[in-house]
Amino acid sequence: MGRRIFLCMDIGGTKLSCALVSDNGEILGKGRKPTPYEQGASGTIPILEDMGRSLIDLARSIGEGVEAIGISFGGPVDYKRGRVLRSHHATGWEGFELTAMLERAFGLPAFMDNDANAAALGESLFGAGKGYETVLFLNIGTGIGGGITIGGRLHRGGRGLAGEIGHTKVDPNGPICTCGKRGCVEAFASGPSIARMAREELEKGDKVSRMLEICGGDPRAITGEMVAKAADDGDEIALSVIDRAMEYLAIGIANAMHLFDPDIVVIGGGVAKAGEIVFAPLREKVGKYLLSGFLERMPGIVPAALGDDAPLLGAMAIAKEGGR
Amino acid sequence: MGRRIFLCMDIGGTKLSCALVSDNGEILGKGRKPTPYEQGASGTIPILEDMGRSLIDLARSIGEGVEAIGISFGGPVDYKRGRVLRSHHATGWEGFELTAMLERAFGLPAFMDNDANAAALGESLFGAGKGYETVLFLNIGTGIGGGITIGGRLHRGGRGLAGEIGHTKVDPNGPICTCGKRGCVEAFASGPSIARMAREELEKGDKVSRMLEICGGDPRAITGEMVAKAADDGDEIALSVIDRAMEYLAIGIANAMHLFDPDIVVIGGGVAKAGEIVFAPLREKVGKYLLSGFLERMPGIVPAALGDDAPLLGAMAIAKEGGR
Repeated sequence: MGRRIFLCMDIGGTKLSCALVSDNGEILGKGRKPTPYEQGASGTIPILEDMGRSLIDLARSIGEGVEAIGISFGGPVDYKRGRVLRSHHATGWEGFELTAMLERAFGLPAFMDNDANAAALGESLFGAGKGYETVLFLNIGTGIGGGITIGGRLHRGGRGLAGEIGHTKVDPNGPICTCGKRGCVEAFASGPSIARMAREELEKGDKVSRMLEICGGDPRAITGEMVAKAADDGDEIALSVIDRAMEYLAIGIANAMHLFDPDIVVIGGGVAKAGEIVFAPLREKVGKYLLSGFLERMPGIVPAALGDDAPLLGAMAIAKEGGR
Repeated sequence: MGRRIFLCMDIGGTKLSCALVSDNGEILGKGRKPTPYEQGASGTIPILEDMGRSLIDLARSIGEGVEAIGISFGGPVDYKRGRVLRSHHATGWEGFELTAMLERAFGLPAFMDNDANAAALGESLFGAGKGYETVLFLNIGTGIGGGITIGGRLHRGGRGLAGEIGHTKVDPNGPICTCGKRGCVEAFASGPSIARMAREELEKGDKVSRMLEICGGDPRAITGEMVAKAADDGDEIALSVIDRAMEYLAIGIANAMHLFDPDIVVIGGGVAKAGEIVFAPLREKVGKYLLSGFLERMPGIVPAALGDDAPLLGAMAIAKEGGR
């Protein structure tokens, strides 16, 4: 039997990606456009249809048929019903029946999950988690999402909410998180949380910091990337802020290890690009919080390998499994 | 095909139980003796052999053969090799090849896991977790153990350590745990931790408390049961100590829910016997810490249903699966 081909879509806050992906994880063609985030679903669907048609034409031109559509969506979804709950980035998506819409448009079955689950599955099957039985995946960016795979299949849990490591609580007296609760991992280690902690440090008064130069003297303009840049340049305050973020992230990862005992922890998003300067201290911090039984054969903590392709490859697997 | 019969053993710190269990969870015969905990494995094995022989005779007398031996052990084990790592309660067990020993003694294949995993499996298949896809089980006693089942099978993880909810950290500034780390769930909510917190309250000075009567005036004699008794009698200090323990337990359970999204949470051990006086406030506290997505269809948090039979029934399932 020949290879099977899927039309895969990744709907994010800043870009829309579509790709033609084979069941062995090969990307045969790919397109990308900016997300019209102020227009929600109604502005996005025509762009997806347009890119999708081109890719189906491409498949036809190489003598291949497309079997199904797989979708990675940047926000919570009801994967069983193929319905968006809401977008993390844009309005006009609440309750949108996305798979039904695309099924009508393309005459193909469509299956969807959120982007953290899609990326977790992509990395588990084709990336840094390949070959490991139990994989814990984290994506650290504006928020902290996560996904869990066991034997190459997503563990979604009863409500499809499994893997929400970003909202596990690591300090009941910690700062308020975007979710409204206190001391979540995300409230310490997401990009905006790192920026907030840096800002708080600078606002304590007469501090000299490379961060002030980078942000043009206005602490309110600081981003997580600027803190990382200043830390790279050896700035003491930036280094201490990142150290604090990694400490709480380590508690969250160690907690997840105690519960799940994964064979590997894969981290994607901005932090994955930082390399050993982040991963080496992170591994040491996690080790500090683990029961001794884990240390004899401590699971690896490694950067994601597929970058932006992870959710597309995961979407392929979701379509291939038929949304199971 | 007829029913299949297994010889099941539960090796705990205070008692040894053996039972003849059918593959549909029926207990056909059972025996119990005190654990000779000061004698370790060498004192325990003859008692197990003796009880086991009687049960095999019983099986023969009703025309049944015994297929295999399943063991629940009170401490960490290497389940793949059938080897005890150590006992939580007794010396003389380190590295003991328990399944090989029993295989020689009985001429039957033997399989083993720790008691938290065995009880989790027992409750999932035959008790309070029956019929639920994903089950999180906690046993709250001298320590806090746990186990996870998915589709009626244990999720053991890469090192067989999954389910260690007792050693997830819920407050980095919390009290020191038996494991040597700070602020684990176990350091707040185990029986001895509740007793410690009560003692600390009483030692703050001129407190009037029912607990002082119950413990005969010596705060050092207080146990978790005495705190529960005083709380039952309406003692304010005991009530506030238990409320604090449940608050941190709730954080641990909510964290596990965010990671796993179980369909039900089953709690065994002493606390399970307390009933709604503990479970009603615990559910409310957990709800407070959950993302809104969980609240629409919040997983049940319920007492274990099988009591002391849970590890024996789980041991049957472990033997039936052949240690897989």
